[in-house]
Amino acid sequence: MGFAETYEEFVNHLREVATLSSCESVLGWDEQTYLPKGGVEHRANQLGLLSGMIHDKSTDPRLGELLEELAGSDELDADSPRAANVREARRDFDRATKLPKRLVEEMSKATSLGQQAWIEAKPKNDFASFQPWLEKIVALKREEAEAVGYDDVPYDALLDTYETGASTQTVEATFAALRDELVPLAKAIADSPNQPDASILEREYPVDVQRTLGLEAAEAIGFDFDRGRLDVAAHPFCSGIGPGDCRLTTRYDERFVPMAFFGTLHEAGHGIYEQGLDTEAYGTPAGHSCSLGVHESQSRMWENLVGRSRAFWDYFYGRFQAGFPAALSDVPLDTFHAAVNTVRPSFIRVEADEVTYNLHIMLRFELEQPLISGDLAPADVPAAWNEKFEAYFGLVPEDHAHGCLQDIHWSAGLIGYFPTYALGNLYGAQLFDAAEAALGDLDAAFAAGTFRPLKEWLNENVHRHGRRFQPTDLVERVSGKPLSHEPLMRRLHAKFDHLYGL
Amino acid sequence: MGFAETYEEFVNHLREVATLSSCESVLGWDEQTYLPKGGVEHRANQLGLLSGMIHDKSTDPRLGELLEELAGSDELDADSPRAANVREARRDFDRATKLPKRLVEEMSKATSLGQQAWIEAKPKNDFASFQPWLEKIVALKREEAEAVGYDDVPYDALLDTYETGASTQTVEATFAALRDELVPLAKAIADSPNQPDASILEREYPVDVQRTLGLEAAEAIGFDFDRGRLDVAAHPFCSGIGPGDCRLTTRYDERFVPMAFFGTLHEAGHGIYEQGLDTEAYGTPAGHSCSLGVHESQSRMWENLVGRSRAFWDYFYGRFQAGFPAALSDVPLDTFHAAVNTVRPSFIRVEADEVTYNLHIMLRFELEQPLISGDLAPADVPAAWNEKFEAYFGLVPEDHAHGCLQDIHWSAGLIGYFPTYALGNLYGAQLFDAAEAALGDLDAAFAAGTFRPLKEWLNENVHRHGRRFQPTDLVERVSGKPLSHEPLMRRLHAKFDHLYGL
Repeated sequence: MGFAETYEEFVNHLREVATLSSCESVLGWDEQTYLPKGGVEHRANQLGLLSGMIHDKSTDPRLGELLEELAGSDELDADSPRAANVREARRDFDRATKLPKRLVEEMSKATSLGQQAWIEAKPKNDFASFQPWLEKIVALKREEAEAVGYDDVPYDALLDTYETGASTQTVEATFAALRDELVPLAKAIADSPNQPDASILEREYPVDVQRTLGLEAAEAIGFDFDRGRLDVAAHPFCSGIGPGDCRLTTRYDERFVPMAFFGTLHEAGHGIYEQGLDTEAYGTPAGHSCSLGVHESQSRMWENLVGRSRAFWDYFYGRFQAGFPAALSDVPLDTFHAAVNTVRPSFIRVEADEVTYNLHIMLRFELEQPLISGDLAPADVPAAWNEKFEAYFGLVPEDHAHGCLQDIHWSAGLIGYFPTYALGNLYGAQLFDAAEAALGDLDAAFAAGTFRPLKEWLNENVHRHGRRFQPTDLVERVSGKPLSHEPLMRRLHAKFDHLYGL
Repeated sequence: MGFAETYEEFVNHLREVATLSSCESVLGWDEQTYLPKGGVEHRANQLGLLSGMIHDKSTDPRLGELLEELAGSDELDADSPRAANVREARRDFDRATKLPKRLVEEMSKATSLGQQAWIEAKPKNDFASFQPWLEKIVALKREEAEAVGYDDVPYDALLDTYETGASTQTVEATFAALRDELVPLAKAIADSPNQPDASILEREYPVDVQRTLGLEAAEAIGFDFDRGRLDVAAHPFCSGIGPGDCRLTTRYDERFVPMAFFGTLHEAGHGIYEQGLDTEAYGTPAGHSCSLGVHESQSRMWENLVGRSRAFWDYFYGRFQAGFPAALSDVPLDTFHAAVNTVRPSFIRVEADEVTYNLHIMLRFELEQPLISGDLAPADVPAAWNEKFEAYFGLVPEDHAHGCLQDIHWSAGLIGYFPTYALGNLYGAQLFDAAEAALGDLDAAFAAGTFRPLKEWLNENVHRHGRRFQPTDLVERVSGKPLSHEPLMRRLHAKFDHLYGL
């Protein structure tokens, strides 16, 4: 078989895997949005069947043969998108085939039961009943790390699953530099006499208006509703199902307006990335998002750097006042803008502000490493959590539901995943600097409701590359500088020094 | 391998096919309810892939071997449900193995895109843009008939897909007997001086109240919303996705209240059947509905024989008056009940009354036969439709949206399907007679809002049998008489002779 035929069979194989996975995505989306409660068990059977089929196709020996043939071909220019497709598909294939089927099945069972145990344990603050599952899952993740292999420490193998090329050592160095500047900023803010009136956000905000304005804002920043939609889910997410079909979800609280609004902008940021992928390359790495960290850079950029900017509210606040006259007619723009930028130490990661959010991530990163190295026993997690929390935030969680039981991730086997959230914030600030360097100051455009230049710059410089470059290489290539905490810190200071009169 | 192991492998195989098909159902439901328009093409690819996989599993030679082994076993009692499972699975296997995979995939793609073309063509009355899809689909259905084989005419092969054991000839004979009595009844009604005031149904009926009352009525007759839901779709349907998950759809017109209300009861009737299937037998013929005709007997029974009965409105009219005070406070129950039983020649099948409805079916039956035999070109459908319509109804459709573009069926490849609607009316009346013979007169219970005896009788006598008996055998077994048009005609006379003073 010639190179062209081999490459075509390879692409068709990947595309079939992707299309089947996208069926799983539709069922997953439906499970979180519209599934009747009686259908839960059958849905698990459907998803179990599909994921088995997807695994079989992803580890099909024929795919291994095609990869061998393509890797040996001299028709593949090392810098080409095709070479990147072969390289990344090889990574995926190797990883999938290195995991023994027994381990995959045990992990699937442990995380399925572990999530149920977590769901029951959390409201009861019952760490003890979750502990055996955490032990089991940590043990399996350690096995996974050994099976996959790593250069330095086992945690590297887990990090690399979610953030290609990231290592424990480099992440630790970046986080340390960030922490050194973040902690004093958070302290200065807490000590400032200029505190915003966040209570105005807890007035009555009718849900139908929240929905209308969320849709309007998401569309304004560039999410295309002809190729996507917005629904309600208990745990909001964005699902890029396939070309032309990207689903956002959010949840509404009539008495807390920022949740759905910024949540919608956040998910729309993910969605704009999905909609910016190269549909011609669908199913191949070239048509897939780069990494979780890069994905998060897009959502956090639109949510925070755009959505919480003064310029955005110069444009949008009139609509908010008109939509919520009872809540906002007596609230000046300055007051509102300060309120949506409230910084305050808090227990729950998903409710944290722009400044303290990254500290929540570092805490988890610092616990996950010794869990995987074996230096921290799962039984000792609650004490270690509370000790670290006090060190970072000056507070001790009132219970485990506000402490080490708050996140679903560990029960779902997602260890090594948290760091991608903070990496996303770092990438986002650095990419935003690069966008401003290329496009000039964007505030005037935002204040006029014009977001297209930024969106198109991201389409061109980030989205269309797919997985061609590794995450930090992409950031360095686009910004011309290695990844650093400085762009994020500069941006935080620029906003919060002013708001808090530092 | 012993009988027990063989039978277990056989059931597991069928269950896997059913589970994979149920994934297809979720995607099909989503396509009609929530799919963004940009996702249409990818949805076609997803459905094409799944239907190919379902076809592969349904025609897996291993299934053929298992069927051979089981058929030869003397452990299978000829009258047992297990024997019925083997017999019906054999029918399905034989049919499926006769269809080439290419044809199945082409059909899936053509009908997915064809439905979207129909959705766009209908509001524009643009038959020309739909015609190429109709041509493609008719060509594929003719190929299907040849591949499957038939005794008499190709149309038999299509009919038999939806109504096991039905033949063009016997359906024609039954329809002829029905037509001979229906046409004079319709004429007598049209000539009656006692015409109801149907204009009261075209007052303003707020959609949110329509939805609430539709949900209430569907629940009252026995549809379980913990195991199902109700959404909006352009062409309403019921999708029994799997155990515990059955989806109804309807559409609302603020200025025409019967459409959504009786539509919801109709789909709930289908849903009650799906929810009444034996979940232990999921995936096997014993856990599957008997036929489309029997399915329709359930929907039409709840919609018409129950929902349009005087007893039902004795129970429900107070709720209607309270929900729609502006429209109904001056309307007595008699007037309302007469209005929802208005008989009038009309263009739209799904809006047709109980009397003229079957004439709409006969028209389609008479066009489908020459389409499949090749005697009628798809291009000539609009003219043929209008000519026949005038012959039956004395009217010519004002446009194609009110004529040959009104139904989704052909765009979805459902040719040979329409006759099952009229068969359903015949089965329904005959089964309802049997229920009354067993339970006594049901009117007093309905007037008190009690529908459980009828529902449980249907669960026991119809639903739980699955596909154990062929449709007409089931009707005969339950009613003690061969299928006849007489129960339906008796019931129509009993209602309409009174309402129209005949």
